[in-house]
Amino acid sequence: MRYRSDKAELLSDQPSIPDIENSWNVHWYHISGLSNPRLVEDIGKKFDLHPLLLEDILNTSQRPKAEDFGRHIFVTMKMLRMNEAGDVKEEHMSFVLGQDYLISFQEKENDLFSPIRDRIQHGSGRTRARNADYLLYLLMDLLVDNYFLLIDSLAGRIETLESEVSERPKREHLEGIQDVRSDLLAIRKSILPLRELVNFFVRGQSSQISPDINPFFFDLSDHIFHLFELVENYREMALGLKDMYNSSVNMRMNQVMQTLTVVTTLFIPLSFLTGVYGMNFANMPELNWKYGYFALLGVMVFIALLMLFHFRRRGWI
Amino acid sequence: MRYRSDKAELLSDQPSIPDIENSWNVHWYHISGLSNPRLVEDIGKKFDLHPLLLEDILNTSQRPKAEDFGRHIFVTMKMLRMNEAGDVKEEHMSFVLGQDYLISFQEKENDLFSPIRDRIQHGSGRTRARNADYLLYLLMDLLVDNYFLLIDSLAGRIETLESEVSERPKREHLEGIQDVRSDLLAIRKSILPLRELVNFFVRGQSSQISPDINPFFFDLSDHIFHLFELVENYREMALGLKDMYNSSVNMRMNQVMQTLTVVTTLFIPLSFLTGVYGMNFANMPELNWKYGYFALLGVMVFIALLMLFHFRRRGWI
Amino acid sequence: MRYRSDKAELLSDQPSIPDIENSWNVHWYHISGLSNPRLVEDIGKKFDLHPLLLEDILNTSQRPKAEDFGRHIFVTMKMLRMNEAGDVKEEHMSFVLGQDYLISFQEKENDLFSPIRDRIQHGSGRTRARNADYLLYLLMDLLVDNYFLLIDSLAGRIETLESEVSERPKREHLEGIQDVRSDLLAIRKSILPLRELVNFFVRGQSSQISPDINPFFFDLSDHIFHLFELVENYREMALGLKDMYNSSVNMRMNQVMQTLTVVTTLFIPLSFLTGVYGMNFANMPELNWKYGYFALLGVMVFIALLMLFHFRRRGWI
Amino acid sequence: MRYRSDKAELLSDQPSIPDIENSWNVHWYHISGLSNPRLVEDIGKKFDLHPLLLEDILNTSQRPKAEDFGRHIFVTMKMLRMNEAGDVKEEHMSFVLGQDYLISFQEKENDLFSPIRDRIQHGSGRTRARNADYLLYLLMDLLVDNYFLLIDSLAGRIETLESEVSERPKREHLEGIQDVRSDLLAIRKSILPLRELVNFFVRGQSSQISPDINPFFFDLSDHIFHLFELVENYREMALGLKDMYNSSVNMRMNQVMQTLTVVTTLFIPLSFLTGVYGMNFANMPELNWKYGYFALLGVMVFIALLMLFHFRRRGWI
Amino acid sequence: MRYRSDKAELLSDQPSIPDIENSWNVHWYHISGLSNPRLVEDIGKKFDLHPLLLEDILNTSQRPKAEDFGRHIFVTMKMLRMNEAGDVKEEHMSFVLGQDYLISFQEKENDLFSPIRDRIQHGSGRTRARNADYLLYLLMDLLVDNYFLLIDSLAGRIETLESEVSERPKREHLEGIQDVRSDLLAIRKSILPLRELVNFFVRGQSSQISPDINPFFFDLSDHIFHLFELVENYREMALGLKDMYNSSVNMRMNQVMQTLTVVTTLFIPLSFLTGVYGMNFANMPELNWKYGYFALLGVMVFIALLMLFHFRRRGWI
Repeated sequence: MRYRSDKAELLSDQPSIPDIENSWNVHWYHISGLSNPRLVEDIGKKFDLHPLLLEDILNTSQRPKAEDFGRHIFVTMKMLRMNEAGDVKEEHMSFVLGQDYLISFQEKENDLFSPIRDRIQHGSGRTRARNADYLLYLLMDLLVDNYFLLIDSLAGRIETLESEVSERPKREHLEGIQDVRSDLLAIRKSILPLRELVNFFVRGQSSQISPDINPFFFDLSDHIFHLFELVENYREMALGLKDMYNSSVNMRMNQVMQTLTVVTTLFIPLSFLTGVYGMNFANMPELNWKYGYFALLGVMVFIALLMLFHFRRRGWI
Repeated sequence: MRYRSDKAELLSDQPSIPDIENSWNVHWYHISGLSNPRLVEDIGKKFDLHPLLLEDILNTSQRPKAEDFGRHIFVTMKMLRMNEAGDVKEEHMSFVLGQDYLISFQEKENDLFSPIRDRIQHGSGRTRARNADYLLYLLMDLLVDNYFLLIDSLAGRIETLESEVSERPKREHLEGIQDVRSDLLAIRKSILPLRELVNFFVRGQSSQISPDINPFFFDLSDHIFHLFELVENYREMALGLKDMYNSSVNMRMNQVMQTLTVVTTLFIPLSFLTGVYGMNFANMPELNWKYGYFALLGVMVFIALLMLFHFRRRGWI
Repeated sequence: MRYRSDKAELLSDQPSIPDIENSWNVHWYHISGLSNPRLVEDIGKKFDLHPLLLEDILNTSQRPKAEDFGRHIFVTMKMLRMNEAGDVKEEHMSFVLGQDYLISFQEKENDLFSPIRDRIQHGSGRTRARNADYLLYLLMDLLVDNYFLLIDSLAGRIETLESEVSERPKREHLEGIQDVRSDLLAIRKSILPLRELVNFFVRGQSSQISPDINPFFFDLSDHIFHLFELVENYREMALGLKDMYNSSVNMRMNQVMQTLTVVTTLFIPLSFLTGVYGMNFANMPELNWKYGYFALLGVMVFIALLMLFHFRRRGWI
Repeated sequence: MRYRSDKAELLSDQPSIPDIENSWNVHWYHISGLSNPRLVEDIGKKFDLHPLLLEDILNTSQRPKAEDFGRHIFVTMKMLRMNEAGDVKEEHMSFVLGQDYLISFQEKENDLFSPIRDRIQHGSGRTRARNADYLLYLLMDLLVDNYFLLIDSLAGRIETLESEVSERPKREHLEGIQDVRSDLLAIRKSILPLRELVNFFVRGQSSQISPDINPFFFDLSDHIFHLFELVENYREMALGLKDMYNSSVNMRMNQVMQTLTVVTTLFIPLSFLTGVYGMNFANMPELNWKYGYFALLGVMVFIALLMLFHFRRRGWI
Repeated sequence: MRYRSDKAELLSDQPSIPDIENSWNVHWYHISGLSNPRLVEDIGKKFDLHPLLLEDILNTSQRPKAEDFGRHIFVTMKMLRMNEAGDVKEEHMSFVLGQDYLISFQEKENDLFSPIRDRIQHGSGRTRARNADYLLYLLMDLLVDNYFLLIDSLAGRIETLESEVSERPKREHLEGIQDVRSDLLAIRKSILPLRELVNFFVRGQSSQISPDINPFFFDLSDHIFHLFELVENYREMALGLKDMYNSSVNMRMNQVMQTLTVVTTLFIPLSFLTGVYGMNFANMPELNWKYGYFALLGVMVFIALLMLFHFRRRGWI
């Protein structure tokens, strides 16, 4: 699409890449789906992009980075989203920012940037009044906001796990904790290079960013630092959760053992006594005593009470 | 309120924002409760504040930071307090410092700054003799002092837990330790950016801070570093507490197992013997021996003593 | 081999080291197998290499590094590969880059660089058009790509272990986890100095690297940082795996203990009752009651049901 | 006291603070016990000290630091000593160094600096030949030496614990380890800012320190770094001790369980057999066999031997 | 000893310290055994050494460091060796390097440097052709090589422990692991300041080191960094070993518990049945049934098989 202060035009499914015209402030070329490397190559030729840059656009395992090529800036970063199964999925995004154009490349085909496109088309014109560098900021900000959404959902999962684990720890929780930990690792891996990347803009060394856009990138940098701190915090909380799970399992094992010990040590001596008077010796005086049985029952009750008192004092029952 | 060396005036619930008058040294505008974004916007217009700055005032999840806008400095930080339930609550505070005015924004409506206001109104005038930058220092110092109170209360909780856990570890303690750990994480998250923030003042690069106020900010920086070290220390102590809890649970489990083992290994062989002489074989010579029963009782007492001696040597009883 | 834009010549098993001729752009001398220190010495004399440099070529425990000797650059790094037994093996590689020549030394004799040699000989000539510094980049890039292969295979092993451990933890898994951890340690040890090494090229301070090759080394630096982050991530995942193994063993022990406790506490009181009525006292009224036996059976079933209900409520069965 | 090369005078319990006289090289004012804030204030007026400085002298929770006020340097640090109960106690010390005077403030009243005072009064005069900056070095060195004593005593406690824990771990050891760990934390907290503090002197930026005293502060800096490394080492050893305690408790629990298992699995099958032949079925052919009893005894001995052999092979007995 | 390009002279057990003569390139004074502080003092006077320097030579707990005194450089470092009992012993070494002399001080009396002395005396003269700075490099290199030997022997111990622990963990292994860990800590403590020390030479700021010796110190720096990485790696491996020990003990405990559980839950229900039919009720119909005994035996075999099947499915036997 292309736009200037007073109007915006959406040109989609054009047969060829539209040229840049001076009458428009900003030209935004958006390529979604990298399945067609030919198209990327064509754009590369039209805008005179370095072969390594084109490679970085297509290589979806490329690390986030920003590079200044003089006539244009190249930025690549990851977009993280949670799919329906609750797994974190990574998508490779690249931007090329020139004097009056921005090219955005998206790995998968979906309408991620539609809110921004709508705002430009139907908005009050404040966004249209700015240049392509502000558009780049808007797109990057949207991606960073997506990270916050992701972390919020992880925070919810951690809280749920925490309350469940403290009640009754199960094998599933263990896997849940492990999942959260590797998701946090994946997010951290994505954010780590972002800190460096955004510094590129904040330092203001870049040729295509006008100084009045700088505060916005400062703000973005702030958000990214905040993100990083959040991730580190949740990583520590996940670690604490694992500790809690282990302690909780131990505590339960302790209770199980206490039950076993109480029951066993209560009845084993009593059973021994019944064993004694179950023996068949010819000469066992007690057996013939008239109240022998009742006396023994009394003794056993007494022993049992003694033991129960002892257990209670130790806090086992 | 506005004040100068010789007097101070409190103007509250004015219909409109009072203007700055040269006859007063300092004008302190305090807005408590951010429920009225309209008011913030009005102030923004009156004092010509950048839109991003106004956004940061209203966005309660904004990270602490200080920024110099030339005509004024913007500072935002968190105020932490413990609510009645013992949870750590965060409140968003912002300050705008100009030549002869200070605007303070507080998220919730409560009379947090009343001690300072009273000191200005009724005090000896030493505070009134200084400028708005000193007022900013006073407010920030009050917030930092609040952190110390918070940490003291956490320290108390850690000590209580420590003595209780070493006596008899319970499930509640586990949750208590986890709570302390996440509270410390939350405090740390708040202090971390403060170190950066206060550096902004200490470096003395800021346009609105006069050099004779610098030592006070140096002092504040010292306090914040002290805070940070305290938090790190308590975090290590909480970690040690968790270790102690686990070791304590283990130790108790060990005692339970020892009891079980002692009782079981003592009575099982004896019970076996009674079982032997409880059998109904036609030909069992011992049974008919006159002293068989008493001989067996003697043997059993001997075995029991032997075992008890063995257990004592191993330190199990 | 030697090559220029339009053609390439492969000279192998020459009796003596071929001289440098100006008519060729690049001379690539490749020495595989360091068993012949004599050859290395000859080359040292021919190209005027420092004795410490020659020592570093032959010393297979030399740490990766890059050094500028003015007339030539010396680079040494490790090549890691997994042997058939699944162990990580290290191979020592060294490069000397001069104005129009590159000498590569390989510890073992195998045809590691054949894909690059083939590309030069039969390729479209694009590689031939560049100088010796680009050849150095190609060789180093190939070594770094090998690291990625290695890490991918470790990632596979971690995933297999993860799914097996969560099902049924065995002693072999413990050893498998330990193996993965020490392999990751070994890889990390190799990559750590690479970061420093590649900085040498990126800073562009080196005499033999032309500026238009710089972007390629930038790219290489990016790959190495990516590698390092991957290794750190997998190290954390291996740590998580160890935690999971321990928790899984604990969980199983818990289940074993629950079974033991349920069975024991269920039958021990019942056995005690049978013991009581197995005693041989002369006067035990219940024994002579006609329905005594059936009444006792009823009582025992009742006790058993009560206990089972209690166990179920505790979640033990 | 005041001194110069040839003589020293001790003036104690003077009614007023003695004035500085040019005929003496160094005036050392020592205030022990901060219970009299009035005295500190008087000194503050006499020597023109900044109000924040006086506050730092009296605030015993002040973090160690050094500050240059132009006409004098202010240094505050902690003195750690172990009290009779074996607890680490902190004492707040402050120094003000001027051109020809040193004022030392000590929190508690005890004769800590008497060795140095004696050396000045009765010594060979080498110390008297130097200026107040050397005196400051002497006092600081004495405080740092106290840290070494403290760490030595902790090292002794760690060694005692280590040998006791490896023999028989008890609950008291757990508390002992926790104590050592928090003592080390406290020491570390005191040393951490010292590194920064001593840098102040080593960098030689300070107005009151003559260059020929610099080597002494270099030496002090060395000691502090050594201290810090020692503390870190002992912290790791305390961590290792905790691990050892846990492993030791686990090992003992293992032994207890093995005993329980050996005894139980040995006798339970045998008891079962006696139970079988204790039944009262009318028709049990074995009971009437003449050698039935002896045959069963033989079978039971055989089973027991088989089991013992099995246990020995598993290493349980 | 003293030497120049063409010859070397060994002067031992001289009555007095030989003077420096211009006709010799290098004078090497070696003092082994610091028991004679008088000798050190004499040397101090002769070569005009600073009192703090002499103190550092005699203080065997001095931290490694290098200092430039203008006319000479002072270097002190540790020599680590393993004594016969397998403990790591530290020895204090100091060097003073002047224009044409090197003084080496060794804490204990043994012929540590004899290989270098022999090489100078009988060697090809290449070493004699260089100056005293090269001699210093040779001695320091020898000390660093000793560290590698030490680490190799620790690596061997770790490997032995690893294979033994994974087979059958014993109490001795626990102590062995703890020993290795504290040895590694001790080595690390010695190496840490070496990194700083060697930087002193590499930066080339030192007055007594000629630029052509610089590559050798670069090499030494490389070795020390390699050392440090090795130590860090082995520390991680020792940590992994401790984890493995704990997991191994847990695994064994698990097996013990499984055995206990299998045997107990197998026989307890059966014993209960024998108990039932051992009771003496007057009216127990089954007892008088002719095949009652055999029917019960059948039932018991059936129950036992059922349980064994259940255990096998759970993987307990």
